[in-house]
Amino acid sequence: MLHTAAPTADDLAHEMLALGRRARAAARRLATATAAEKRAALAAMAAAVRAHVAEILAANAIDVAEMKVNGQTAAFLDRGTLTEPRVEAIAAALDEIAALPDPVGKVLAAWDRPNGLHIERVATPLGVIGIIYESRPNVTADAGALALMAGNAAILRCGSDSYASSEAILTALREGLSAAGLPEDAIQLVPTRDRAAVGMLLGGLGGTVDVIVPRGGKSLVARVQAEARVPVFAHLEGICHVYVDKAADLDMAIAIAVNAKLRRTGVCGSAETLLVDRAVAATHLAPILDALAARGCAIRGSDEVVALWPAATPASEEDWRTEYLDAIISVTLVDGVEAAIEHVETYGSHHTEAIVTADPDTAERFLNGIDSAIVLHNASTQFADGGEFGMGAEIGIATGKMHARGPVGVEQLTSFKYRVRGNGQLRP
Amino acid sequence: MLHTAAPTADDLAHEMLALGRRARAAARRLATATAAEKRAALAAMAAAVRAHVAEILAANAIDVAEMKVNGQTAAFLDRGTLTEPRVEAIAAALDEIAALPDPVGKVLAAWDRPNGLHIERVATPLGVIGIIYESRPNVTADAGALALMAGNAAILRCGSDSYASSEAILTALREGLSAAGLPEDAIQLVPTRDRAAVGMLLGGLGGTVDVIVPRGGKSLVARVQAEARVPVFAHLEGICHVYVDKAADLDMAIAIAVNAKLRRTGVCGSAETLLVDRAVAATHLAPILDALAARGCAIRGSDEVVALWPAATPASEEDWRTEYLDAIISVTLVDGVEAAIEHVETYGSHHTEAIVTADPDTAERFLNGIDSAIVLHNASTQFADGGEFGMGAEIGIATGKMHARGPVGVEQLTSFKYRVRGNGQLRP
Repeated sequence: MLHTAAPTADDLAHEMLALGRRARAAARRLATATAAEKRAALAAMAAAVRAHVAEILAANAIDVAEMKVNGQTAAFLDRGTLTEPRVEAIAAALDEIAALPDPVGKVLAAWDRPNGLHIERVATPLGVIGIIYESRPNVTADAGALALMAGNAAILRCGSDSYASSEAILTALREGLSAAGLPEDAIQLVPTRDRAAVGMLLGGLGGTVDVIVPRGGKSLVARVQAEARVPVFAHLEGICHVYVDKAADLDMAIAIAVNAKLRRTGVCGSAETLLVDRAVAATHLAPILDALAARGCAIRGSDEVVALWPAATPASEEDWRTEYLDAIISVTLVDGVEAAIEHVETYGSHHTEAIVTADPDTAERFLNGIDSAIVLHNASTQFADGGEFGMGAEIGIATGKMHARGPVGVEQLTSFKYRVRGNGQLRP
Repeated sequence: MLHTAAPTADDLAHEMLALGRRARAAARRLATATAAEKRAALAAMAAAVRAHVAEILAANAIDVAEMKVNGQTAAFLDRGTLTEPRVEAIAAALDEIAALPDPVGKVLAAWDRPNGLHIERVATPLGVIGIIYESRPNVTADAGALALMAGNAAILRCGSDSYASSEAILTALREGLSAAGLPEDAIQLVPTRDRAAVGMLLGGLGGTVDVIVPRGGKSLVARVQAEARVPVFAHLEGICHVYVDKAADLDMAIAIAVNAKLRRTGVCGSAETLLVDRAVAATHLAPILDALAARGCAIRGSDEVVALWPAATPASEEDWRTEYLDAIISVTLVDGVEAAIEHVETYGSHHTEAIVTADPDTAERFLNGIDSAIVLHNASTQFADGGEFGMGAEIGIATGKMHARGPVGVEQLTSFKYRVRGNGQLRP
């Protein structure tokens, strides 16, 4: 499938449009696929991945050799390297997705009208989902399978560093689809490393692409959000806050701040800013910062914070807008919950924020006043995850307000329509 | 507010950005407005419209005089002319919107996790809604009020032909908002007739606009869909189909075809194409076409239809893709429900389609196989309307698959967030 010579721009546009049309045709078939058909396909896909482990590893070796030639970092190489256990994990993830409830056909609401019409709002697939991702080759299987379980066709654009691996995985997935009687074009890979293909995909391929999901770093997401002519499910960054209210239990505040910041620092639900109620600064600030610092976290504080806890580095205005994705936290004092909300709304990214307080009224004010996808009371921001929400696998977290917000799992990859049943009703 | 001299492009961009920021600030206040506050504001807005009927009619007289100078048609003049009863209807519509259930704060789903976290998905306002409309000045009040009831700020761009009327209505609306203690900037009018302002609004005004709703003809909607950099709730056209199956009751088929086509021909839910099962062409086609023709409908038929019913004009390929919005219908024969679905998916606009059949299995196949916002069994396509669905007032009908599909009422003008309540949970 991979071009050995660069195609002309016209050739590429033609080829991408044809790819979009094949995806649309496959999506029409998938829209009426039964849960049993989709589960059989996912099981066959898992079996094919297991059967082709040698080919997948051989393809990956080509990618890894090229990464080394390109001088990639050790961390990058680690993310891009497949092993037998990692290929087994890819197959196991397919089995897990096959066990999810089928979201398609679910009656979301139903009611009767005085004229006897019975109206149902029923979940339907979205159609065709474009997924653009970076180096991890497992996304090829995860994203394609999640899209499939929701009845959608997927067009995948992998990172150029994992092209051979992704193509080998795709071959196995399509073998599984075919074995189960579903169209192979349910999952397709953009057949070129040419970056112009990304622009075409973001343009919607002649109206055949319904939504784009980028999986990767901030620069990828920013490009997708800026250029896409179709809806995007994504978050640009997770500048998550923990607010410790004057009515907070100190031990709980310490535990939540430490978990929210340090459990994993590279995930989008990691806290980046700690807000402490000025009313309890004298009692609560130092113990929380001591606990963070003892676990290796660097503290960047406002002037008041530095005055109370001198080991802190002074924070600049830029710190309040920074997603560190590292063991660094910015800290400031605020005058109660209203000022905390004001800070979050001014500097936040509408992703995930937590309040620690024993006062239920204050908690309600925070939960209602903050305009973020996820707001938590007395729990860690690191729960921002589809699995932790009980939604099964997720394709990412969205901070937009349209359609999908928060974790994006199979249910969020559906649309709906209205089914209306009558017995001859005419509109007066 | 209206510029008397044309501003420079920079001035306009600056002014539009400021307008967006004021809307965003108002939206933050509206997001936590109670149902009682919003209802009080809507009642005060209705009272202010009634109190200022003379000013509104005087402003409208200026618009109408200008329309005449510009040589507008009688139909256009009628749509743009206000009278005392029409102003009263505007006020009454505000009272009706005030009586709708408040969609904000509604718990859409709730569940508990094994670790004790209680998760709720709760409806929130979308934020700022841009509404672009043509000549009818009543949209100023309807759209602003619907947005308000869902907790959103509105930025209105009226047709240049109704600028003075819209400004006079807006003055009354803002008086009502202010009297009820809500920010006047909850509803703003783009303060210039300059078309460049539309482009800026479609660009999202620096991220302050969350969604655009166009209200008007196909050329307006097409421009909005092509240029908008934010989501759009709209339908480009309603190429609606009625399929008469071999198991259809003939009397019901006649009644539904006549109602779907002719009740009102200018609405988006009016049928444009009739599909008749070839199996009953000999018995069903002529009586249905006779009934349509007797009521003044022109028939454009496929070759087979013309052969069976010679008064029909031959249909061209273009007819199957045409929204007549007039007393014209295109008619063809199909081989059963599968061919009917194929025709609709090939030529339709994913708006509203109806099947007439006494066979429940065939009905299910149609309802599930058609990818349209609304699919009906044994009922007229003219039920495609938020009021007929029991949703109260609607701002329009959407055929996109994202977020809002079908009638767009107050519920569809909301987003949601996750509220999570814990007692100190940390993520392992």
